[in-house]
Amino acid sequence: MAKNKKMVDAITSMDEDFAKWYTDICTKAELIAYTSVKGCMVIRPYGYAIWENIQKILDTRFKALGHENVCMPMFIPESLLQKEKDHVEGFAPEVAWVTHGGSEKLEDRLCVRPTSETLFCEHYANIVHSYRDLPKLYNQWVSVVRWEKTTRPFLRSREFLWQEGHTIHETPEEAIEETERMLNCYADFCEKDLAMPVVKGRKTDSDKFAGAEATYAIEALMHDGKALQAGTSHYFGDGFAKAFGIQFTGRDNKLAFPHQTSWGVTTRLIGAIIMTHGDDNGLVLPPAVAPIQAVIVPVQQFKEGVLEKANEVYEQLKAAGIRVKLDDSDQSPGWKFAEYEMKGVPVRIELGPKDIENGQCVIVTRHDREKTFTPLTELVETVNAKLEAVREGIFQKALENRERRTYACKNTDEIIKALEENGDGFVKAMWCGEEECEDKVKELTGVGSRCIPFEQDNFSDVCVCCGKPAKKMVLWGKAY
Amino acid sequence: MAKNKKMVDAITSMDEDFAKWYTDICTKAELIAYTSVKGCMVIRPYGYAIWENIQKILDTRFKALGHENVCMPMFIPESLLQKEKDHVEGFAPEVAWVTHGGSEKLEDRLCVRPTSETLFCEHYANIVHSYRDLPKLYNQWVSVVRWEKTTRPFLRSREFLWQEGHTIHETPEEAIEETERMLNCYADFCEKDLAMPVVKGRKTDSDKFAGAEATYAIEALMHDGKALQAGTSHYFGDGFAKAFGIQFTGRDNKLAFPHQTSWGVTTRLIGAIIMTHGDDNGLVLPPAVAPIQAVIVPVQQFKEGVLEKANEVYEQLKAAGIRVKLDDSDQSPGWKFAEYEMKGVPVRIELGPKDIENGQCVIVTRHDREKTFTPLTELVETVNAKLEAVREGIFQKALENRERRTYACKNTDEIIKALEENGDGFVKAMWCGEEECEDKVKELTGVGSRCIPFEQDNFSDVCVCCGKPAKKMVLWGKAY
Repeated sequence: MAKNKKMVDAITSMDEDFAKWYTDICTKAELIAYTSVKGCMVIRPYGYAIWENIQKILDTRFKALGHENVCMPMFIPESLLQKEKDHVEGFAPEVAWVTHGGSEKLEDRLCVRPTSETLFCEHYANIVHSYRDLPKLYNQWVSVVRWEKTTRPFLRSREFLWQEGHTIHETPEEAIEETERMLNCYADFCEKDLAMPVVKGRKTDSDKFAGAEATYAIEALMHDGKALQAGTSHYFGDGFAKAFGIQFTGRDNKLAFPHQTSWGVTTRLIGAIIMTHGDDNGLVLPPAVAPIQAVIVPVQQFKEGVLEKANEVYEQLKAAGIRVKLDDSDQSPGWKFAEYEMKGVPVRIELGPKDIENGQCVIVTRHDREKTFTPLTELVETVNAKLEAVREGIFQKALENRERRTYACKNTDEIIKALEENGDGFVKAMWCGEEECEDKVKELTGVGSRCIPFEQDNFSDVCVCCGKPAKKMVLWGKAY
Repeated sequence: MAKNKKMVDAITSMDEDFAKWYTDICTKAELIAYTSVKGCMVIRPYGYAIWENIQKILDTRFKALGHENVCMPMFIPESLLQKEKDHVEGFAPEVAWVTHGGSEKLEDRLCVRPTSETLFCEHYANIVHSYRDLPKLYNQWVSVVRWEKTTRPFLRSREFLWQEGHTIHETPEEAIEETERMLNCYADFCEKDLAMPVVKGRKTDSDKFAGAEATYAIEALMHDGKALQAGTSHYFGDGFAKAFGIQFTGRDNKLAFPHQTSWGVTTRLIGAIIMTHGDDNGLVLPPAVAPIQAVIVPVQQFKEGVLEKANEVYEQLKAAGIRVKLDDSDQSPGWKFAEYEMKGVPVRIELGPKDIENGQCVIVTRHDREKTFTPLTELVETVNAKLEAVREGIFQKALENRERRTYACKNTDEIIKALEENGDGFVKAMWCGEEECEDKVKELTGVGSRCIPFEQDNFSDVCVCCGKPAKKMVLWGKAY
């Protein structure tokens, strides 16, 4: 039989060129393909299956917390976008404008939603009248458009997929609680399901979402020491309600303005997975979101009984709820090993005539290539244990990378030295609260403020920049 | 306790004004809300939950048939849209054009996808090289935009949600088989899950999809006798492949053009559900897609033990996998009955102190208001049986409506008479195959060709219009 000509090409090593290593994985693991639509991409089946798994887990979590899904239009009339001053200032420069419908010129041009606060506000104004109508806990899974100048698959593209939660509440306390609840939900998802450690914190004022009173974020450290914002949660106070005339009759029978939140994560999480767990052999996927959790590679599959046994094993694992694939194509086992390493399949099961004779198989975990011989009678338990071992293993590896690359610094010279000696990473440093110092730190050292971590560690009394009394410990880093 | 002021408003009766009855249901069952974006709508939680159920069932069916989900960009450069002549002619007049990104004018303007054949073709050209790369069986769940002049919720809106399947095959036979397989998949879904009888057939040439060699469709008859196209499946031959330069090396080592299909259903299905099953009390939902399959309404809920028992029943049904809601709000039972009838909940369970004493409850089915006293020990089985009874009952009702309103006519006078005497409906009539006759029938009688049914019934030898020899029996109707 003719062999399939496709080979698993080697990818650029991450030490040689991290950016190229990243895009190599995106294309060679068949996550994306480029298109003639500048800054946009095709998310291919393997990439989209990861997103579907992320969606399933998050959607279940959101619904368990009482949220309902809705769907708003993808267009926002310019006049509607302009209603909240800060919001339009933040977003107008980077939106795509629809000016014609068919051959007709539109009177009020429409932007393709960059985010949907304005549409939700218009809707709330129509449906919220009494405290009995509150809260509304909404979410939608859609794509949004932001006209970025430079783009990279998953990390920064002109169109990206996301979920945007939008909620509206009777009191500020309730809204703030929701903001925090959803940040915790994201953090828990990232750590448990994506095996990616994150720091929870509040953004400084200069880094808030356009129109928000407070923005909270989770920050992760990538393998190359750069920081990636993995999710955000915003508290709006009643600013949007006032701009859009949303009012309700309270328990005291008086008119009041409700308080709002919004929160979102995007396909950027797939970029985060790549850069947190990947290695020079390709992708390494957290089992919870891996489209294939275990792949069975038969060895000497033409020998009698091998494919039969492999199929038995396949059915057994499938019945146990494991996402399993049996590759009985005519490629060599070596080719298949490389292919599924590239695709980051957490567990590989090798099964040849000798194994079958001995009533066992070989299990190899992707992240550490550890081999285990397992009796076929204990297969399901062992595969499940190995999937958990992968999760735990890649989480610990990522955590160690972050610990090793987190530098506590007392002045900007220390920051510069730490980065020079140890490479990019998170910098912990005290801050006086002035934007001027924030800017100056960035100018002098290259790292910007990522967030003010909830978990504070006040190891110095003075600002890393001006030396005046410090208010907060800030986490700094180079951003993606 | 203060009562919630919201009341269940009566809706316009369908006999009085079918169009108003329809939009009343859309808004009062809280399926949609209008927005300031002309021709677009908010799909509210209850409406979106129906769509989510449709998606879940169809997505499972598609995947079982080997399809994979992908995601293409929402934009198509004008130059790409223009590659296939018929296709661009069909769609260009009704697309929304993005001309500016931020403050910059685009060189090649982008349309918001009205459908994605051109993007899939561009992608295929990049990834299909050998017969070994075929077939590709892709699907995506996205929204598309068509700049309609007059719009109605779900039936015709400028933006709508849909799935678009796109497949590419080695041979025409395989592609035609896929086209038919997916039409059958849609028909089976409509009849089994939506309880909506459909006629499968082929569109006449004048009614084909822009760029298709053949378009197949399923047609349903609404309660008012109008026809609704509920799903389509297109066979493209190799026309797109030639226009986009998609070629593969065949088994004979020669270059060849592959053959393609596409197929889709949209949120229009929700409109079809409303107009097939709804009545003057509101929506009637097929159990398979009902967000709430059974609602528990406690009677005299302030009496000791009632809410406790209601909660027990709730937990029991939930554990059995039934989508159940317990409404223990302080509205009266009568208000709740009306509210959940409006929302089309298939089964209502009434539970009061006397029922509890007798170890029973009352089950009322939505479509026929039939009451059944059921021992609480047999609750799960009975509710499941009732859900099946609703499905069967509404399917039969819709089928009877269609049979009653299907008229076999031998000439245009008979058509006019049948429609006048019995109201709008499907007309079966023989056709010579000439577009001229097709147009003339429409002009004279008001009904257009819906499809050439696969199930032919050649009850006359001559064309209903010109009297020349007939080639096919055509199904005619007034379109939504």
